[in-house]
Amino acid sequence: MTDYCPRVDGQALVAAFADRLERRDWAAFGALLDPDLVYEIPQTRERIRGRDRYVTFNAEFPGDWHIEPLVVLGDEHHGSLLFRWTLDGEASLAVAFFELDACAGRITKVTDFWPEPYEPPPGREHVVERW
Amino acid sequence: MTDYCPRVDGQALVAAFADRLERRDWAAFGALLDPDLVYEIPQTRERIRGRDRYVTFNAEFPGDWHIEPLVVLGDEHHGSLLFRWTLDGEASLAVAFFELDACAGRITKVTDFWPEPYEPPPGREHVVERW
Repeated sequence: MTDYCPRVDGQALVAAFADRLERRDWAAFGALLDPDLVYEIPQTRERIRGRDRYVTFNAEFPGDWHIEPLVVLGDEHHGSLLFRWTLDGEASLAVAFFELDACAGRITKVTDFWPEPYEPPPGREHVVERW
Repeated sequence: MTDYCPRVDGQALVAAFADRLERRDWAAFGALLDPDLVYEIPQTRERIRGRDRYVTFNAEFPGDWHIEPLVVLGDEHHGSLLFRWTLDGEASLAVAFFELDACAGRITKVTDFWPEPYEPPPGREHVVERW
């Protein structure tokens, strides 16, 4: 006997993640997440273990922040989100990747990237312009 | 009369992009790109206009660099790539997003992110661990 396992729509799951976060709908946000979710920021080597701590982290995040999805992608195993992040009126671009439990239809891992401005290295001015 | 427009497989296009780049197969790499491709690095506000300049930029990129795809996603309009970037033996994670011409089966825009390490802000130690 084979258990029935629905094919999750990763793109819809990522879109729902961004929507619930922006609306601070913590109950609906938590319902998208695996209880054993792991959240990581590779740039700071920070990790949060567990859905409840991760919801707390987001609910407590200081400042007037907003998330505007620009690109939402997903398949049965992974998802990605490029979004405009606005914090107290300052806008920047940020990225998240997701691992999904295809059977449960839940997010099991979130990996966040917060790319900061930096000065370009010299030597490529002959092909590059600045804006 | 309606022109025939094939449905491009964005995921395969992104996988091919990473493969041709890693193999320095510049002819095959260029064949994936629209002649009017735009490349941007939002962190440095750098922009390259045109396939030929973008191929030159990659072919001239200094150091012993390697690209190992970790997550490859795509639909008819967009793609994303999370990859391990190794430069002269130093590994880090980097991200690219893609815009695609669904009819031509080519990449029209590449947006690269090079997230650097930073120190986390205080105030979230009660939910976060470090590694």
